[in-house]
Amino acid sequence: MATHQSNGHIATADKGHSAAAQNGHSNGKSNGHAVAPEVEWNFARAKDGVLATTGANMSIRAIRYKISASVQDDGPRPVLPLAHGDPSMFPAFRTAVEAEDAVAATLRTGEFNCYPAGVGLPAARSAVAEHLSKDLPYQLSADDIFLTAGGTQAIEVVIPVLAQPGANILLPRPGYPNYEARAGFNRLEIRHFDLLPDKGWEIDINSLESIADKNTTAMVIINPNNPCGSVYSYEHLAKVAEVARKLGILVIADEVYGKLVFGGAPFIPMGVFGHIAPVLSIGSLSKSWIVPGWRLGWVAVYDPKKILQETKIATSITNYLNVSTDPATFIQGALPKILENTKEDFFKRIIALLKESSEICYKDIKENRYISCPHKPEGSMFVMVKLNLHLLEGIQDDIDFCCKLAKEESVILCPGSVLGMENWVRITFAIVPSSIQDGVERIKSFCQRHKKK
Amino acid sequence: MATHQSNGHIATADKGHSAAAQNGHSNGKSNGHAVAPEVEWNFARAKDGVLATTGANMSIRAIRYKISASVQDDGPRPVLPLAHGDPSMFPAFRTAVEAEDAVAATLRTGEFNCYPAGVGLPAARSAVAEHLSKDLPYQLSADDIFLTAGGTQAIEVVIPVLAQPGANILLPRPGYPNYEARAGFNRLEIRHFDLLPDKGWEIDINSLESIADKNTTAMVIINPNNPCGSVYSYEHLAKVAEVARKLGILVIADEVYGKLVFGGAPFIPMGVFGHIAPVLSIGSLSKSWIVPGWRLGWVAVYDPKKILQETKIATSITNYLNVSTDPATFIQGALPKILENTKEDFFKRIIALLKESSEICYKDIKENRYISCPHKPEGSMFVMVKLNLHLLEGIQDDIDFCCKLAKEESVILCPGSVLGMENWVRITFAIVPSSIQDGVERIKSFCQRHKKK
Repeated sequence: MATHQSNGHIATADKGHSAAAQNGHSNGKSNGHAVAPEVEWNFARAKDGVLATTGANMSIRAIRYKISASVQDDGPRPVLPLAHGDPSMFPAFRTAVEAEDAVAATLRTGEFNCYPAGVGLPAARSAVAEHLSKDLPYQLSADDIFLTAGGTQAIEVVIPVLAQPGANILLPRPGYPNYEARAGFNRLEIRHFDLLPDKGWEIDINSLESIADKNTTAMVIINPNNPCGSVYSYEHLAKVAEVARKLGILVIADEVYGKLVFGGAPFIPMGVFGHIAPVLSIGSLSKSWIVPGWRLGWVAVYDPKKILQETKIATSITNYLNVSTDPATFIQGALPKILENTKEDFFKRIIALLKESSEICYKDIKENRYISCPHKPEGSMFVMVKLNLHLLEGIQDDIDFCCKLAKEESVILCPGSVLGMENWVRITFAIVPSSIQDGVERIKSFCQRHKKK
Repeated sequence: MATHQSNGHIATADKGHSAAAQNGHSNGKSNGHAVAPEVEWNFARAKDGVLATTGANMSIRAIRYKISASVQDDGPRPVLPLAHGDPSMFPAFRTAVEAEDAVAATLRTGEFNCYPAGVGLPAARSAVAEHLSKDLPYQLSADDIFLTAGGTQAIEVVIPVLAQPGANILLPRPGYPNYEARAGFNRLEIRHFDLLPDKGWEIDINSLESIADKNTTAMVIINPNNPCGSVYSYEHLAKVAEVARKLGILVIADEVYGKLVFGGAPFIPMGVFGHIAPVLSIGSLSKSWIVPGWRLGWVAVYDPKKILQETKIATSITNYLNVSTDPATFIQGALPKILENTKEDFFKRIIALLKESSEICYKDIKENRYISCPHKPEGSMFVMVKLNLHLLEGIQDDIDFCCKLAKEESVILCPGSVLGMENWVRITFAIVPSSIQDGVERIKSFCQRHKKK
């Protein structure tokens, strides 16, 4: 709190330092000088605002930086980043050469330095429509695709479109906290439904009717699931569509991990059920091509009955994107070639790596009695693991576990409380097999060292 | 309005089609079936929302697309895009080869496919700090720089940080409507101050005190000015800083056209006055390097007294960016080389082109009695021009003028009403000299053809 008497003095509502300041807005007008000796900065109220006071708790990034800060810089072993889904730094996970070539070549034409159209380059939108239609019983057109700067911006866009006064949205628990953050920014009320660990992390569908009402506009499903690593069956997704229709809500299907399945069950796009309830699907290059830094994503409208067009949801998305930032134009320009030229072998190799690492991870967790994993991961890059804190000494909660683990073992995990599940942790297995082996062993050593005697 | 009776039927509040629907939220629960025969989609309210109903009017892009739609596709002459500041399609305006090389080389390392840090790569932030400090009486550090996906995202970030309940912001008229749009999204009250055409488009500083109050948190200045092409003097900026201090507000200085001055007066960064009132400066590569499609910008904190740190404005920006999209990582990674390697000759050549085109534009406008230009442009890419509608026949307003001009002459201008100045137009001269010559001649022909008899 600033209390010094310089010209940069910060006056706050409870710390007015002159009669004039306490008497509303003095601004030194009384003395007739242009520059007042003390300034009451009106924007000082920002420090009581939600962004200043609780904003950091809304963000996986902020929590991850906090946990990472516990790592001892002079530790003898490499830091193992098992908190977020980005293995791009490992040569084994380097993106497809065809994708990199496409971006470099498009940049070099010099023809894609311009502003893009607000909703994306037409050729890039067409290419995504073509790409996604392969897995659908109907054909998408370019008009159904809105390009965004990664899946992150897709969330930034869909939430305000639904945030009419009094509206609410159903979000999964555990989930992905950017939805909560964006709903908060847009004053969209949040209601949580549970994912059920003992049922393969399926959605607690029966609970949806009890938490929804006529002000509920949408529900979010993440499939393949972040943070649980589960992949929903056709039957389960059909039930989701039917309950969405019954409740009169649309489904936001976060499918950024769509290609990354390895557990036997195939990935079914929610769009398969678009005729039952309309779907806005969020996708991106980030995860499947291992290029989260390229910031290229999309919102796909799966809505063969054109309900979202009639209700002007599509218009609202266009209008919002017209005053928002865009993915870099030359990356958009490269998109048709990226989608067309990337060989299936690339995805096979990445998926085989993820499968191998996920199995090492799961096996070692099962052998560690201090943590529990209710469901073997089948997709995405993550698994949710329960901390058996009653068997551990001096570990207060998941954040404490993660901070101490980072300090003692240089392993970074994501605490479950930021995802809505206190005393769980999210572990990413999207890392080379030798490193995940190292990681789970360090976790085991840590637990052994902290076990209750 | 949807009125058909299919399963995709849209029920609206005033068009309930069954007693149950009119009686709140029926959702077919009464009949016990999973799928109701008719669905009341709750999100249909979005079509009465601000994004659906007025969103398009908030956006230069939407208006530009509308004007462009008037162009006759089979017209004999090339379309002249004089509505927006993006000459990148012209070979003469191609970006510096050093910049292109830096991006290509950084991409090819494969080390920048990862997520960036939420506020930008440290090396890139340092490079911007170094770059901007050259023109300041004090030194910026990396911590003072927040990288954003273009100037557009910089606006997306600074507005919500200031949007405490009840707060207001002072915006210039004419101005740049993304500020109005973002303030609207964030329920931040807008109060306009005028730029004075007869005083070189200076800010009407005397008016500021009468429109501000203790809930005013900031004012926006755009320098070099979009849309007016003016460049503010040291003395004028000093007055702005003093009145900002007096009012207790911070200055958002939109300086994306900072390097692009050619009228004799130098560009003075608002940060020179950061010790008087704190400044958030918005900058980007887009305009100076002619690469708006690269989406690389920043918010620079010019605040030697650390007032914005104490009031947690900087913390709030960090928290907001942590749940927002980012500039592409490899473009961030290239930034140090772009800033270091781009030769002064590149900027000299671009500025010489802009100067030549601006002079052709201004001279021809002065000779056209149907339009008036109060001030010769000295910077940016634009000039504001008044339509003398009383001399024209059958032209209703600026939008009508622009639509008819697009149809008859294939020249696209930006109507002033979207910038806050009805019956003015914004003309960009950021185009090769031969094209601006062609453009102003077509405008002259159009006016002659529509003159009052």
